Amino acid sequence: MNITLDQAEKMIAAAKVKAVALNTKMNITVVDAGANMVAFARMDGAWLGSADISLKKAKTARFFDMNTGIIGSLSQPGGALFNIEHSNGGLITFPGGVPVQNAAGEIIGAIGVSGSTVENDHAVAAAGALAV
Amino acid sequence: MNITLDQAEKMIAAAKVKAVALNTKMNITVVDAGANMVAFARMDGAWLGSADISLKKAKTARFFDMNTGIIGSLSQPGGALFNIEHSNGGLITFPGGVPVQNAAGEIIGAIGVSGSTVENDHAVAAAGALAV
Amino acid sequence: MNITLDQAEKMIAAAKVKAVALNTKMNITVVDAGANMVAFARMDGAWLGSADISLKKAKTARFFDMNTGIIGSLSQPGGALFNIEHSNGGLITFPGGVPVQNAAGEIIGAIGVSGSTVENDHAVAAAGALAV
Amino acid sequence: MNITLDQAEKMIAAAKVKAVALNTKMNITVVDAGANMVAFARMDGAWLGSADISLKKAKTARFFDMNTGIIGSLSQPGGALFNIEHSNGGLITFPGGVPVQNAAGEIIGAIGVSGSTVENDHAVAAAGALAV
Repeated sequence: MNITLDQAEKMIAAAKVKAVALNTKMNITVVDAGANMVAFARMDGAWLGSADISLKKAKTARFFDMNTGIIGSLSQPGGALFNIEHSNGGLITFPGGVPVQNAAGEIIGAIGVSGSTVENDHAVAAAGALAV
Repeated sequence: MNITLDQAEKMIAAAKVKAVALNTKMNITVVDAGANMVAFARMDGAWLGSADISLKKAKTARFFDMNTGIIGSLSQPGGALFNIEHSNGGLITFPGGVPVQNAAGEIIGAIGVSGSTVENDHAVAAAGALAV
Repeated sequence: MNITLDQAEKMIAAAKVKAVALNTKMNITVVDAGANMVAFARMDGAWLGSADISLKKAKTARFFDMNTGIIGSLSQPGGALFNIEHSNGGLITFPGGVPVQNAAGEIIGAIGVSGSTVENDHAVAAAGALAV
Repeated sequence: MNITLDQAEKMIAAAKVKAVALNTKMNITVVDAGANMVAFARMDGAWLGSADISLKKAKTARFFDMNTGIIGSLSQPGGALFNIEHSNGGLITFPGGVPVQNAAGEIIGAIGVSGSTVENDHAVAAAGALAV
């Protein structure tokens, strides 16, 4: 199973609603089961540098089928996965990337959000993931 | 002046309508006045490799403020801009990238489309650009 | 649908048989429906530089769901897709990349072969693709 | 002396047996004495992001002729090789990369494994290295 553009656009719409509720401006990327980009939106005034971060968060979440923040907790100095960020053309391992599952529990893609605190980034990504 | 996300999403919506009318499946990217990505959509079943091409077409159109096909006519062997494609991390210079102007005639961004013949790609990009 | 490792290994085995029959030494890559690598083999004495070429051929075939040589016929000077090779981190558009279908006709991946003439490369890739 | 494809495939087969015994799904790469890829396999359902990590572990192990985890112990903040991961297009320095020796004790290549805990990754890589 793979995510559809209709699902991805619903995710971005839900993520934007959450971003506005949090008074933030976000970059939002959705990738499919193959970690290939399906949809993207940068809200007006959102940080330019967060576009690539949102993409790398979405890819990272699908690459390892877990929230990006979990990887970041393992990639710290002295951690088991120190400097894993050098792989795959650059990972982003702080919160804001979330895998997306269908009703059957299969991972069909991932969403990555960047533009505010990592807590807000994660909250917006989670809101988007719930829209599937 | 810079393109807004609302304008970019209207452009993508208009481009999708044109793509369906032409019985094609397209990747569509909109960039802003700074050549930075604002919005992207890959229609279900569209070629995976056309995502990057649509982005490079949009960037190329804004980098030089002209339709990508014009640059391609100058980048052929013996032409004035032979192999300009090597710059900027890779240009795409065949048709499908179109600058976007506001009512005052200022260029506020660009749209790039890939997924079919270059004639169809350009037609869909032009339809999107008209939605501003 | 996505290709399995078992299928990919059968494809590589069949490709190796064909490569030996043609008295060649090949690099063989199989990618899945998301254009991600599933399996690879470099036959003893095969060109080192052909490993990346076989990967890029496999990716290119899946990126556009057609044999790589078809793209190459369109990317020549004066052609509709001149210099498309600059996209996606580098395409290879001469023969040797072939999409792989399942019994239902769905594209589930692709195979790329490099190490001899493009005619031999394509023949070995086609033999591999038939093993699914 | 250099590793052969037959040896590399035996290593991957042995690594897969160990991976199944540990109830894991692994990406496994074998490189030769020149740190060039010889063979690769991604087990069904293994993390997509671990393909590149398994390659970088194999390369790292051969680049320095030692287990990757040893390098990681020296690349921590304050360590002698802090951030060595920035070299060679990206190193991976946590466990899972192991050099491969022939009967004469010569290093003829390396194996890299990624897809589970670093302990499991190393155990599978070591099992593969023993198959030579």
